[in-house]
Amino acid sequence: MAAELTAHELIARHRPTLDQALEAIRTRAYWSPHPEHPKAYGEHGSLDAAAGKAAFDALLGSRLDLGQPGTDDWVGGEVSPYGIDLGVTYPHADLDVLLPAMRAGQRAWRDAGPEARAVVCLEILKRISDRTHEFAHAVMHTSGQAYMMAFQAGGPHAQDRGLEAVAYAYVEQARTPDTAEWTKPQGKRDPLALTKQFTAVPRGIGLVIGCNTFPTWNGFPGLFASLATGNAVLVKPHPHAVLPLALTVRVAREVLAEAGFDANLVALAAERPGEGIAKTLATRPEIRIIDYTGSTAFGDWLEAHARQAQVYTEKAGVNTVVVESAGDYKGMLSNLAFSLSLYSGQMCTTPQNLLVPRDGIRTDQGHKSFDEFAADLAQAVDGLLGDDARANALLGAIVNPDVKSRLEAAAGLGEVALASREIANPDFPGAVVRTPVIVKLDGAKPDDEAAYMSECFGPVSFLVAVDSAADAVELLRRTVREKGAMTVGAYTTDDEVEQAVQEVCLEEAAQLSLNLTGGVYVNQTAAFSDFHGSGGNPAANAALCDGAFVANRFRVVEVRREA
Amino acid sequence: MAAELTAHELIARHRPTLDQALEAIRTRAYWSPHPEHPKAYGEHGSLDAAAGKAAFDALLGSRLDLGQPGTDDWVGGEVSPYGIDLGVTYPHADLDVLLPAMRAGQRAWRDAGPEARAVVCLEILKRISDRTHEFAHAVMHTSGQAYMMAFQAGGPHAQDRGLEAVAYAYVEQARTPDTAEWTKPQGKRDPLALTKQFTAVPRGIGLVIGCNTFPTWNGFPGLFASLATGNAVLVKPHPHAVLPLALTVRVAREVLAEAGFDANLVALAAERPGEGIAKTLATRPEIRIIDYTGSTAFGDWLEAHARQAQVYTEKAGVNTVVVESAGDYKGMLSNLAFSLSLYSGQMCTTPQNLLVPRDGIRTDQGHKSFDEFAADLAQAVDGLLGDDARANALLGAIVNPDVKSRLEAAAGLGEVALASREIANPDFPGAVVRTPVIVKLDGAKPDDEAAYMSECFGPVSFLVAVDSAADAVELLRRTVREKGAMTVGAYTTDDEVEQAVQEVCLEEAAQLSLNLTGGVYVNQTAAFSDFHGSGGNPAANAALCDGAFVANRFRVVEVRREA
Repeated sequence: MAAELTAHELIARHRPTLDQALEAIRTRAYWSPHPEHPKAYGEHGSLDAAAGKAAFDALLGSRLDLGQPGTDDWVGGEVSPYGIDLGVTYPHADLDVLLPAMRAGQRAWRDAGPEARAVVCLEILKRISDRTHEFAHAVMHTSGQAYMMAFQAGGPHAQDRGLEAVAYAYVEQARTPDTAEWTKPQGKRDPLALTKQFTAVPRGIGLVIGCNTFPTWNGFPGLFASLATGNAVLVKPHPHAVLPLALTVRVAREVLAEAGFDANLVALAAERPGEGIAKTLATRPEIRIIDYTGSTAFGDWLEAHARQAQVYTEKAGVNTVVVESAGDYKGMLSNLAFSLSLYSGQMCTTPQNLLVPRDGIRTDQGHKSFDEFAADLAQAVDGLLGDDARANALLGAIVNPDVKSRLEAAAGLGEVALASREIANPDFPGAVVRTPVIVKLDGAKPDDEAAYMSECFGPVSFLVAVDSAADAVELLRRTVREKGAMTVGAYTTDDEVEQAVQEVCLEEAAQLSLNLTGGVYVNQTAAFSDFHGSGGNPAANAALCDGAFVANRFRVVEVRREA
Repeated sequence: MAAELTAHELIARHRPTLDQALEAIRTRAYWSPHPEHPKAYGEHGSLDAAAGKAAFDALLGSRLDLGQPGTDDWVGGEVSPYGIDLGVTYPHADLDVLLPAMRAGQRAWRDAGPEARAVVCLEILKRISDRTHEFAHAVMHTSGQAYMMAFQAGGPHAQDRGLEAVAYAYVEQARTPDTAEWTKPQGKRDPLALTKQFTAVPRGIGLVIGCNTFPTWNGFPGLFASLATGNAVLVKPHPHAVLPLALTVRVAREVLAEAGFDANLVALAAERPGEGIAKTLATRPEIRIIDYTGSTAFGDWLEAHARQAQVYTEKAGVNTVVVESAGDYKGMLSNLAFSLSLYSGQMCTTPQNLLVPRDGIRTDQGHKSFDEFAADLAQAVDGLLGDDARANALLGAIVNPDVKSRLEAAAGLGEVALASREIANPDFPGAVVRTPVIVKLDGAKPDDEAAYMSECFGPVSFLVAVDSAADAVELLRRTVREKGAMTVGAYTTDDEVEQAVQEVCLEEAAQLSLNLTGGVYVNQTAAFSDFHGSGGNPAANAALCDGAFVANRFRVVEVRREA
């Protein structure tokens, strides 16, 4: 095959970046090759804001023909949470044609080896990076994230997570050498001598089941981890968030083909409304790896039924913040207010339960009663979202009617500390924009427990009155153990409480942010440094990203012969 | 706690060995710190042959009190395949007492960190190594292996596999630093700065379900992988092979206590005859990791039902050798004869099906017809086992009546190329010793297919006539895909056939030995270099040992705070 892009060329282009990524996951210091600032784009072949917007606009109402074999129909129907009908249609696949076609190129992809696969993945990420503004619009108009967040979380941060997965996949494969000479002494006799070859072989086809809220951020790690370990990858987006992943598949197919590989190593599985092809796909024998982000119910179903596959799930949890005392009360309030508001709380990492002693808390601003804290937090959120333009930029839009219903119902669960209000979006009159509701509950009341011990996804938080710090710690433990948690936060100036919260997080395997008061938030993690989820509590069976996330996506086959 | 053995002391003692092991798994060159020669023992605190025998004899008829909490009974009943009633009794546990007691010491074990855990494991292995002769008798009189094999495979080779698991566990935990300083530039504003701590945390209690034939070799990897990653480990031996693992548990408890840790981090779960506690244990919520070696039926049951645990299984497969042509006909015959005979074929790695073109094979000794090859192989086995003393030393004893029944039934499956015969063991008149049976089958006959496509564990091999090399390759593929394989062998001087066999092994994830004619056999693998199983075909869902075998036995918990 006459590849336009040789492995040699791609290695020269991307090996330095790969090496930096390998160093970053080893030191876990800050690093990213993907600029966060919108104005950083527009040179060296990347699209600036206007060009990205134009590219997105050109997609609206179009047929996104990926050139996939076995396309038997064109399907679509995405409506932006901002009210726009995207009108894009995608290939619908005859699986009995598409899946075999995806396997055809696997041998060459396997034989290319870990380094060539890694740099092809880096080229895909680079081209996605160049189109970050276009992707940002696609993420915004499927997830409901505000533009700046769609740009950053859906762009550089997602690309970072993809690159991180490539780095882990590379290092995991490279730890076994390609060949070894094995010579075992036999005393006076001749030594035994063998030549051994080791090859990383893929499991088969990886299936990525995307989510509505973070199609790229949650989709990239599994996609790149499977691809970099030699598997073909079929991407099954959430039916309301197809476009960002369809664009991803398009770029991947283009790069694969240019590098001399079969474009069908990456394909899209779009579905008709209500078709529910995830279950069908997940149990196909060709599918040997599944990456899933979404509801606990379907995640549990996958773990139980997709027995032929390695299944990596990120499901739901109940995230808790223990508020015991504060050394910087105002910093805490503003930090919490931001975390509760960002993307209308529609993040798997958004705190839901704030556990506060009913006798109040010690702070650098004096003692604050439970009700004072509630009022101050409400005021902080109000202040943050007081300006409509700023509110729109932070909140984005409500992603679906279920979230809106839960938000409306939440006000009836207890005393409302902060009521949700509607915000108009002048650019998108169809957008449903709401500020968070904060509801007071009593940790000791069984009726309240039913509320705070269930995940209430969306802009709903509960201030849960507890008897003491020890009570908070025990409720934290029970919540993580029974419901899982993607994140835990704690505010305390007391060493013993800090130790107790840490111990719960270590024992129940939850990621802990302590006393955040500045510009880092409990609901945000940075690739190459922070783990997203732990894989050790019910919220997720895997973490982004670690050795366990990649090590079982391939196997090593040894061929040995006498030397 | 005033530990007799400090971590510092243990690090000084064992870190050089750990470093050599880390280097060995990286280069996969030959290495072992455990001597294979029986005469290497007897100095530096190790037991020589006589002392080891005396130690074993002293165990017979005794109560092995491990000092475990919750012991509610004493159980035993092992009868050696050599006819000796061992008469050892072991603690039977009240699980509701023992399991909580096993968790009590987990925090200190976790907090000790990966390096301290690794060197404690190495001290356990060192003390086991010192008692290799004693263990050899224990392995011999439970598995039926002949003494020399029990000594080597049950001693240094098993210890190597344990050490290999410790090395993998250490490197996997150490790849994330204990702490990181993360500083993210913010243009003209102050950078964001966080201090992060990372802790490897255990999953809970690991359960090791031992097998009858290789209690230590197959038991050590899971035991040490779980222990080194911070878990407590409960060892549930096969009821006919308790002693080697009970001795292991005794040594582990002794070392843990001396090093200042809770001895209950490792415990034994012996059972009453017919009690079948594996199912009960495997679904206890405290059990979060399971390592199992045994039948496919129970392995599949574990994978389906022990959903709260990470399950690593080594089950059954149908191992195949393709015999297409030979550059060293005599070397091939003697190599195959040894592989079929060793431990009466009672190894998960013993070849079962030899696929031979019905038109015969090209060799350096001229063309050999199918029947000539059958006769020559039969003669090679006969020659190898012609002397009774040598036969006993190679064959060992038949481990249980099921193997004997299968052996007897096999002669009725087709034309017998080599009949099994009885051999007397002058030292152990009660031993059931049998030479292998070799039966000719036709790959094209459906009746024969029922035989060669099922695992027939024991000294039974089938010479399967196939139409061509291509036919052999396709049958190999189908066998591995449908039945799994721990090993594949091939003899060929034809590059195309070699490539085709290799491609099948890469695609179906099977470990391949090519043209072995000397002192290395298809059924043997060496730790630190060869992978045992691939984890990618139905015979086993894990390989010994790789990153995937250890990476999900622990999770990493991050605690971050503003710097």
